[in-house]
Amino acid sequence: MQARIAPEPGRRRFLKRGLALGAALAVAHPVPGPAQSPPAPDDPSKVLGGPRRPYGERSRFETATRKVFRGKTDEVGPNMAPLQDLHGIITPSSLHFEVQRGGVPDIDSRKHRLLIHGMVDHPVTLTVEEIKRLPSVSRIHFLECAGNTSSEWRGPAYKTVQGTHGLTSCTEWTGVPLPLLLREAGVRKGATWIIAEGADATGNERSIPLAKAMDDILVAYGQNGEALRPENGYPLRLIVPGWEGNVNVKWLRRITVVDRPYMTRMESSAHTALMPDGKARQFLFVMEAKSVITFPSGDQRLAGPGFYEVTGLAWSGRGLVRRVEISTDGGKTWHDATLQEPVLRFAHTRFRFPWRWDGREVVLQSRCTDETGYVQPTLAELVRVRGLNSIYYNNAIQSWKVAADGGVHNVRA
Amino acid sequence: MQARIAPEPGRRRFLKRGLALGAALAVAHPVPGPAQSPPAPDDPSKVLGGPRRPYGERSRFETATRKVFRGKTDEVGPNMAPLQDLHGIITPSSLHFEVQRGGVPDIDSRKHRLLIHGMVDHPVTLTVEEIKRLPSVSRIHFLECAGNTSSEWRGPAYKTVQGTHGLTSCTEWTGVPLPLLLREAGVRKGATWIIAEGADATGNERSIPLAKAMDDILVAYGQNGEALRPENGYPLRLIVPGWEGNVNVKWLRRITVVDRPYMTRMESSAHTALMPDGKARQFLFVMEAKSVITFPSGDQRLAGPGFYEVTGLAWSGRGLVRRVEISTDGGKTWHDATLQEPVLRFAHTRFRFPWRWDGREVVLQSRCTDETGYVQPTLAELVRVRGLNSIYYNNAIQSWKVAADGGVHNVRA
Repeated sequence: MQARIAPEPGRRRFLKRGLALGAALAVAHPVPGPAQSPPAPDDPSKVLGGPRRPYGERSRFETATRKVFRGKTDEVGPNMAPLQDLHGIITPSSLHFEVQRGGVPDIDSRKHRLLIHGMVDHPVTLTVEEIKRLPSVSRIHFLECAGNTSSEWRGPAYKTVQGTHGLTSCTEWTGVPLPLLLREAGVRKGATWIIAEGADATGNERSIPLAKAMDDILVAYGQNGEALRPENGYPLRLIVPGWEGNVNVKWLRRITVVDRPYMTRMESSAHTALMPDGKARQFLFVMEAKSVITFPSGDQRLAGPGFYEVTGLAWSGRGLVRRVEISTDGGKTWHDATLQEPVLRFAHTRFRFPWRWDGREVVLQSRCTDETGYVQPTLAELVRVRGLNSIYYNNAIQSWKVAADGGVHNVRA
Repeated sequence: MQARIAPEPGRRRFLKRGLALGAALAVAHPVPGPAQSPPAPDDPSKVLGGPRRPYGERSRFETATRKVFRGKTDEVGPNMAPLQDLHGIITPSSLHFEVQRGGVPDIDSRKHRLLIHGMVDHPVTLTVEEIKRLPSVSRIHFLECAGNTSSEWRGPAYKTVQGTHGLTSCTEWTGVPLPLLLREAGVRKGATWIIAEGADATGNERSIPLAKAMDDILVAYGQNGEALRPENGYPLRLIVPGWEGNVNVKWLRRITVVDRPYMTRMESSAHTALMPDGKARQFLFVMEAKSVITFPSGDQRLAGPGFYEVTGLAWSGRGLVRRVEISTDGGKTWHDATLQEPVLRFAHTRFRFPWRWDGREVVLQSRCTDETGYVQPTLAELVRVRGLNSIYYNNAIQSWKVAADGGVHNVRA
């Protein structure tokens, strides 16, 4: 009773039995090719291939890129990851989202120093090579910008998942535990916060509670096995598991141990949540449980009724993703998706869900539950509590409408 | 009783108490810079940084590369990964080792097809886009060339861990389970093997038992979140968990279901083990448990006595690494290293071991035990069984000698 893949290349039978992969096989996804480069050989086995390279590059036929989406109030928007083009849980470093406001600094790692000072017994300046010789750990962690999905609050919303959710990524970070450095420096009694400062032209500074700094923060130098990329903080950055991207200070050059937060620009004029009563919540830090379907997602097109594997990403700033549910009827009923192993704390979790589309208009949604039992809310639920003044921290359930013609649309765009 | 990091930048005190990170901080590792490019600004925060890029690149100050090591009998040696420069367990795709004998084929994924035929009820030809729409899985797996560490059998041995062990790498692969494709095609009674064929100029073919093909093999199109790299099989390759790299056929264009192995070049004239009695063992496939210390490793130099974190990689073609032990006395005594979580089946496992060097000549070794209880052998133990005719399948314990001057040397080079 197995379904069969149709035997005729180019003219496939779309069988109806069993798994019935027919429709999936018929999806037309045009792959854009590089217009200017010569065609590849029709039969590559008939010609000698290209030379070895000491440092590899991707195929000239691959075109996925980060992209800046410009909103009405944001002329220099962040560079968002093409979630619709990505597989698994690892984001390639070349496509990891990036946000910077003063350009990507050009830093020679041999000249770079990290100063640790303030309320410590032994202030110290460390070179990158010195840091790399200390005991280290590697962890696969997501990073999400607090402004991810901000366009979904009041619009105008973006069409694609890259535009709505492309400010999250997940890579393997390697670095020295900050608690080790702080213990070596000798934190003084009365200290309660650290101030982390970047070496970019904005001198981004963030206040972080000492309790978190003494828990699981890394001073990272490695990303997906090699050095951090320039856009992601080369040669040193903080990795603050589960907390908003902006406190994961890039191009890290200074940690000052202090007894109060510094109320910097990125924790006063930005990265706050303006509530309906006009008061702003500050220092929220944790990125709450969230998920999004990346296939099918906005601006894609299904070829016709039949079987599809729905897939996407879920994550939680509280630790583990425990459950992802899928609704194919706009939220009336929910069904468990399969979570791709390994499910890791503070990491993207890939989910998959087998789905047969009957050809009628439907709304697809995913809903994440994390290890604390917290359930990803609807946008209506979020707005009921937070009102509509917010920019940051939108972790609402995303709705993709599949129209009868197979077109997939953001219901808010 | 904590040790302190010395306060004076450039002139550090090397304290003797507690963790005493002094010596580690003093290791002199010259970082080669690009000679031809202009210097970076002394203070990057004083100048506007560079522009966003749609597809990122590494820092111009990073120089780790794959490298070809030429032996006496191998004029076109494989391109080996710089294990001494890598962090964590993920190998960046740009530095994943590669072996090819007909150049890297230039393949347009829109033109590429996979044919599944032979002893099946429904032969089928699939495009890459069709394969990407099928149910898929992602797994972090190592790949090791059967010829890794071959220079250690009889020499001349290489100085660095890149030369001795650089034919292993580990990335996240995404693809369609081959059992799904074979079930859809309908494998006929009597079939016992598959023949996988690549589209490169050598038309690499390998025979694989059907039992493995129906177990855990993937037809992969994704690597570390994006498309496979050209050197690693773009747009399709087999991933055969735990088995020698060469059967993980790259540029996959054909799977023929058959009732016997085909005795191709890579399973008759190569990839066999010539035993002392002159008989050759064939179809060994599984890469047995192995490990290697990547720091300190050959051609590095320790600055002086004191604390160091010894680190390296372990893996097993039988599944999980259960234990890695370190000897700092040439194999007389062994001590458990810490295994970096997550420890994953058929993946590199990063190990770490705190070590205080007293300044005397020592030999450092690592020894892996896998989930079957198999223990990585010494070279003497291997030679006792296999003799000295072998080229492939050298998984012996590696010995790095630390000389009194801090220089680290392959004892066989």
